[in-house]
Amino acid sequence: MEGIVARLAEVLPSEQILQGEALKQQYYHIWRMHESLHALAYVMPTTTAELSSILAICNEWEQPVVVYGGRTNLVGSTETDSSELVISLEKMNAVLEVDASSRTITVQAGVILEEIQRQADNQDLLFPLNFGAKGSAQIGGIISTNAGGLRVLRFGMTRQLVLGLEAVKADGSIISSMKKIIKDNSAYDLKQLFIGSEGTLGIITKAVLKLVEKPISRCSAFVAVESYDNVVTLLKQADKMLGGTLSGFELIWGHTYNTMTSAPSLNKPPLPHGSPFYVLLESLGSDPAGDQLRIERLLANCIEVELITDAVVAASAADHTWFWNIREDVHVLVSQMIVDQHFDISLPVPLIGSVIQNIWKELQTIEDVRETHIFGHVADGNIHLMIGKTHNDSNLTEVINEIVYRPLQAIGGSISAEHGIGLHKKKYLSLCRSEAEISMMQLLKKSLDPKNILNRNKVLDL
Amino acid sequence: MEGIVARLAEVLPSEQILQGEALKQQYYHIWRMHESLHALAYVMPTTTAELSSILAICNEWEQPVVVYGGRTNLVGSTETDSSELVISLEKMNAVLEVDASSRTITVQAGVILEEIQRQADNQDLLFPLNFGAKGSAQIGGIISTNAGGLRVLRFGMTRQLVLGLEAVKADGSIISSMKKIIKDNSAYDLKQLFIGSEGTLGIITKAVLKLVEKPISRCSAFVAVESYDNVVTLLKQADKMLGGTLSGFELIWGHTYNTMTSAPSLNKPPLPHGSPFYVLLESLGSDPAGDQLRIERLLANCIEVELITDAVVAASAADHTWFWNIREDVHVLVSQMIVDQHFDISLPVPLIGSVIQNIWKELQTIEDVRETHIFGHVADGNIHLMIGKTHNDSNLTEVINEIVYRPLQAIGGSISAEHGIGLHKKKYLSLCRSEAEISMMQLLKKSLDPKNILNRNKVLDL
Repeated sequence: MEGIVARLAEVLPSEQILQGEALKQQYYHIWRMHESLHALAYVMPTTTAELSSILAICNEWEQPVVVYGGRTNLVGSTETDSSELVISLEKMNAVLEVDASSRTITVQAGVILEEIQRQADNQDLLFPLNFGAKGSAQIGGIISTNAGGLRVLRFGMTRQLVLGLEAVKADGSIISSMKKIIKDNSAYDLKQLFIGSEGTLGIITKAVLKLVEKPISRCSAFVAVESYDNVVTLLKQADKMLGGTLSGFELIWGHTYNTMTSAPSLNKPPLPHGSPFYVLLESLGSDPAGDQLRIERLLANCIEVELITDAVVAASAADHTWFWNIREDVHVLVSQMIVDQHFDISLPVPLIGSVIQNIWKELQTIEDVRETHIFGHVADGNIHLMIGKTHNDSNLTEVINEIVYRPLQAIGGSISAEHGIGLHKKKYLSLCRSEAEISMMQLLKKSLDPKNILNRNKVLDL
Repeated sequence: MEGIVARLAEVLPSEQILQGEALKQQYYHIWRMHESLHALAYVMPTTTAELSSILAICNEWEQPVVVYGGRTNLVGSTETDSSELVISLEKMNAVLEVDASSRTITVQAGVILEEIQRQADNQDLLFPLNFGAKGSAQIGGIISTNAGGLRVLRFGMTRQLVLGLEAVKADGSIISSMKKIIKDNSAYDLKQLFIGSEGTLGIITKAVLKLVEKPISRCSAFVAVESYDNVVTLLKQADKMLGGTLSGFELIWGHTYNTMTSAPSLNKPPLPHGSPFYVLLESLGSDPAGDQLRIERLLANCIEVELITDAVVAASAADHTWFWNIREDVHVLVSQMIVDQHFDISLPVPLIGSVIQNIWKELQTIEDVRETHIFGHVADGNIHLMIGKTHNDSNLTEVINEIVYRPLQAIGGSISAEHGIGLHKKKYLSLCRSEAEISMMQLLKKSLDPKNILNRNKVLDL
């Protein structure tokens, strides 16, 4: 060992530093486990104090670091080069407390989402955040990217579920406010700076998260809708008629629903193919019979006024699993593609129908685009596109990016609803953020990380 | 006119600048209208561009400014001296759009809360933020202080209701992101810096606010509870059994309830005096009969297991008004005090009972303290204390501050749940924020307002 790694070895036990051959066992993305990691070294702090020492040294040496959580991100955030130091939070993976009276859970950054859900459930509580990568994603990464998912409509993004936070700044200083309180207007809410800034302003080490009472009843229904305008009206109706119980409202475009419910998918269609739109809605409540009745009344009403054309309500736990598998198993779409390209754009809800229609039409004109699948958290204005193409040429990628991102500028949309900017979306940031905004971001980055060591070149260029 | 005021007169029409005699018609707080304003001048921009010019000039001249909204704050934020320039947003008071499909309202900073509520209501929507000063408080001030109120439990603080924001920085640069989208993870969420920083990092000019569907049913109940632990269990039960409909859960200590429901108050007691605690709960739902039944079932259940000792459910609109008047008319408490001192502290929910009991006991030992009234948004951990005392001596004020604030440090509480820090709480900030946090706040302030012109000496000292 030499240079900074030798210096780090003075503050870290040797088994917490991987170098040389040992790096080959590591990987930069959970889907790329077969590709070796390129990095100067890979360090695994076990305490906030150790991380603080690591960063103080890196700051002194102007050593760029890349922060690793569960390595599930989709925007190149964990890509490295061989001059960078990887800091992985994997050994800081303790659940420190579940407090059923305060309805909070206190965790270290390396705890996996599914574990938080499980521990909450053990206390008859719910951690409402939920998404596909829950078995791998670590809460530190989840908070630093302000992850969304399937129940944002009711419970909000990650930002709304974080009560207390501890993070280490680039210079090693520890910013800690591990409070269980819901309201705190004592000067600036510093945690907001670490949430969603993708590890560029500090590394999250611990959090106090908000839990809610575990729902007693769950209702799901699949609905067929003839037009996008009717989808918007249905959303308003459902929100109104289901009181505060509506927890999911997912939209799937007709041709995507067909693919999701045809072989090779093992999922049968709960409603016949042929409708332009399908909505999967969910309510979580306290009154199994009453909640079921309310959802049936809503749907009967909507059929009567011809707002929807067909509907089926889940009648059993097996039905719930079946319905939600259709929506969640996006692998069935990807597996039929030669090369795939993903989007998680955000748009004002009423404009989604026409804007997506135009994007879809334009994609149809590209010869090398084979499939365009569209679905998303429409109640949040968040649409996912999965585009299958014949090759991975970067020109093609950029042509597709332009088609999808360009219309967002005029309508006040966002190139990222959930996944963040990372490395891959950086060049498109100015389509949804003004020059003044980007320069304010750069100012913040320079103030908080003057040597630009944290996730350098991710999110922003300086 | 001379100096900077003459310079401002080059960019502002003369009727938008008040000076000299005209200042005597102005005031610094809505409760102090009889006291003349001390200021260099009082300017009223009508557009963001005008405000930008004003700030660019002030920044160049290093002229400190104090920002005025509805002047309803309770922490000295609008106090001035005669060297400061007041910037009032009162002429920027247009509602720009109500979008029923996006469920958003777009407003200028000077719009009064009640007007936003009314315009939402006209579209069959609800702007859920609600508190006593709604007839005077302007949305710019509300956002800059991250106001709370009576329905935070269900709908969140102001922070959660702001989708888009426009603000002007100290140097006059305009940071605008007036988007209607719910999710935006495109790099840093800059609006979070302007929300709750009390005008020290920028002046808010416009906002896009989230609306929700207007509830169809409303249920309220007053409940008598024997112990604080039972209050916590009742909160969990109510949250669980009322599904997503629970929208209010207010706690009133027994002796305060007695004063609130005895002459000179015109409100009669819905439940007999004599219980140590009273809870006022509210649900907002979509199913009048079902929701009423659910609340009755909850309360019957709680009586059966002796979690509560008595309960009464509002049977009419008049009952709702009666019940909520009791809670909201805090004037009846203040009017019986010689001099009053207010608190809005935040504590972990399960600890409130014992901590408040100790504070109460200690206050009893102060001869000059005549009354201590206690109530609050207990579901949010936010307790209000109103303390009546015989005189306004600053030593007494500080003794009382010490008694109330000191215990919060050890338990991870906050000296301000809602009202902010302003001028009056600044010296206690270090009781709930660490040295590292305060120095990070100072760094942010210095980076974004290097000449320290915005609300100088408020919130933080540099």
